[in-house]
Amino acid sequence: MQKHVLPKGFLVNGIHCGVKKKRKDLSLFYSESPCNIASLFTKNKVKAAPVVLAKKQLKKNAYIARGVIVNSGNANCMTAKQGMVDAKRMARETARLLKLKEDDILVSSTGIIGKPMLMKPIIEALPVLVKGLSRDALIDAAFGIMTTDRFVKISSRIFTIDGKSIVMTGVAKGAGMIKPDMATMLCYILTDAAISKRALNKALVESASLSFNAITVDGDMSTNDTLMILANAKAGNEEIEEDSNGYKIFQGNLISICTELAKLVVLDGEGASKLIEIHVKGAKSKNDAKKAASAIANSLLVKCAVHGGDPNWGRIASSVGASGADFNPDRLEISLDGQTFFRNGKALILEREHTLVFKGKQVNITVNLHNGKEEVVEFSCDISKKYITLNSYYTT
Amino acid sequence: MQKHVLPKGFLVNGIHCGVKKKRKDLSLFYSESPCNIASLFTKNKVKAAPVVLAKKQLKKNAYIARGVIVNSGNANCMTAKQGMVDAKRMARETARLLKLKEDDILVSSTGIIGKPMLMKPIIEALPVLVKGLSRDALIDAAFGIMTTDRFVKISSRIFTIDGKSIVMTGVAKGAGMIKPDMATMLCYILTDAAISKRALNKALVESASLSFNAITVDGDMSTNDTLMILANAKAGNEEIEEDSNGYKIFQGNLISICTELAKLVVLDGEGASKLIEIHVKGAKSKNDAKKAASAIANSLLVKCAVHGGDPNWGRIASSVGASGADFNPDRLEISLDGQTFFRNGKALILEREHTLVFKGKQVNITVNLHNGKEEVVEFSCDISKKYITLNSYYTT
Repeated sequence: MQKHVLPKGFLVNGIHCGVKKKRKDLSLFYSESPCNIASLFTKNKVKAAPVVLAKKQLKKNAYIARGVIVNSGNANCMTAKQGMVDAKRMARETARLLKLKEDDILVSSTGIIGKPMLMKPIIEALPVLVKGLSRDALIDAAFGIMTTDRFVKISSRIFTIDGKSIVMTGVAKGAGMIKPDMATMLCYILTDAAISKRALNKALVESASLSFNAITVDGDMSTNDTLMILANAKAGNEEIEEDSNGYKIFQGNLISICTELAKLVVLDGEGASKLIEIHVKGAKSKNDAKKAASAIANSLLVKCAVHGGDPNWGRIASSVGASGADFNPDRLEISLDGQTFFRNGKALILEREHTLVFKGKQVNITVNLHNGKEEVVEFSCDISKKYITLNSYYTT
Repeated sequence: MQKHVLPKGFLVNGIHCGVKKKRKDLSLFYSESPCNIASLFTKNKVKAAPVVLAKKQLKKNAYIARGVIVNSGNANCMTAKQGMVDAKRMARETARLLKLKEDDILVSSTGIIGKPMLMKPIIEALPVLVKGLSRDALIDAAFGIMTTDRFVKISSRIFTIDGKSIVMTGVAKGAGMIKPDMATMLCYILTDAAISKRALNKALVESASLSFNAITVDGDMSTNDTLMILANAKAGNEEIEEDSNGYKIFQGNLISICTELAKLVVLDGEGASKLIEIHVKGAKSKNDAKKAASAIANSLLVKCAVHGGDPNWGRIASSVGASGADFNPDRLEISLDGQTFFRNGKALILEREHTLVFKGKQVNITVNLHNGKEEVVEFSCDISKKYITLNSYYTT
């Protein structure tokens, strides 16, 4: 089993307070000293109150804070003015218990939309949550942010910059409402590296585009999506600036963590049983490659075909054809799990010769548009009957 | 039961030839005299051979033809040059048996993509198909174009223009791969009205935008979508021109038939059990209204909620928020089956007070953006476990 470690100077906790019936629903990520923060939030026009608040707090506090309080079970979204009052109260009460200013603690929420927050159990549980802050509670904190997730998602890296050992650890929650075009879920990455805000922001944006912005579960974009990295400089390295050697090492590890977490999010897509890696090559532009890959990633019919182990490459061709990407259908090339099914206008594999396609836990769709040199990789998952069951009776 | 009649001068037939194992798979729609034709084809970049051929034939023949031969079970798509050879052969052989020119008979195909056509059974069955042409075989012809459809889709209207009785009858097939933005499936409308090509084309385009281009089953656009109207002038009315009184009557009936067929197509969405009527009002522009309605129509999470009878209006708000439509979330209003759940930033109905929502066979989602005067109506369906079953093992 992979060892997950907390970076220096961080304490975390996750407990059950009562927003959800029986599972952990309240987590705290806390740093003993101020952190530089970079973040990406949902692009949905409907934004949850804590998202609106966190954006304001970060701006006001010059992108420095001490931690994040997160509840699951209620998204605090479409909750009118009371939603903002509640989000602020969560920040203020947590900060008070930690002897900090209100804007030092950011807030996130995830869960059902449109229901008033259950504030009483949260406020009552905060002293217990704060008192229990620990170096050993990473898994508890990871559980506390989950909704319909089936497993915790944690990823850690230890690396060296300027002779100093640096730790970076990310915790994510995903499941439904996952779509490229945004940070896609809740994800908090903690690191003890010293890094400038500018460099931190650049590294996060670049890493997200290769990971969280390249994944699809059901094509729906959440109102609460949040990706955040907190760097507290406790490792004692010289502050990392853009385009330095240290930056490259830092960013390489951040990409690695984000990709691992993004794949875990897809693999835990509600009712999913297979991770689909979609590789579109030979596109005229990056945008064309992205259009084609997203169309395949979001096609319900492709998801069904993968689920059934059915090498129905015609559905892939049809998705690409409808995507708006520029290509000549006669030059299209489609390979599934390494076997080429269509090339130069010809189907190459006859029926009953494809018994080994789409059978594994991780499957591959490669499409070459033969129209240029750009390429892109996206991740999706299959869809099963369980998705329908999970999502047909969520609120009632 | 509704009476379906064939317009004067048309003969049809539908038989089993052997492309499919046991069900009817070959249909012919034939007029004893030349027809003015208007048509809309898929916008998918990957187009089936018969679509490419039909477009050419219509252009060459000045939008006049005598009929359409349709097979189901194989889409004749991504079938390289042989696909075009096969499509032409279907037209040529049918025309020969009817003593017509090759371009007088158009071809359509529907079914699996990427498999060579099984031409032998088709060619061998053509004499039987032609010989059996009849005024009583409309239901047979409707069966012959079906793939995974659960029921035949026919709609008829009889109306009077200039004292002449006019018949208009449409036959459609749908099921999977239904998305707004195109004619969405196979649909042939026959009428004995005399109408100019220009007027016919205008009426078809306008009718499609209110019907077939406003429906969604799974967001996938087919490579074979075809909507066609054939008018043979046998009713003896004076030729209908644009903007005349006769045109209005003709168009009203065409819209009515297209809407009825489009709703039947949605209701027969693979594994669907409920028709969802989505009404977006108060939009700043038609385009905004369309964006919001399509986002709701295509949201898997909304489809699941409707399936489970769950009034999860938060998912609707989230879809609209992600759609790109311009609106202020605080002014959004959401009603389900006539009950207002959200208005002026406030949730109005508490849990367990919504027992009568999404329970019927036809459900309604109304969203008012309160941002202008434009509106749009779209149709979608719920998604059930059956969709997954039907589409996971289609080719194998």
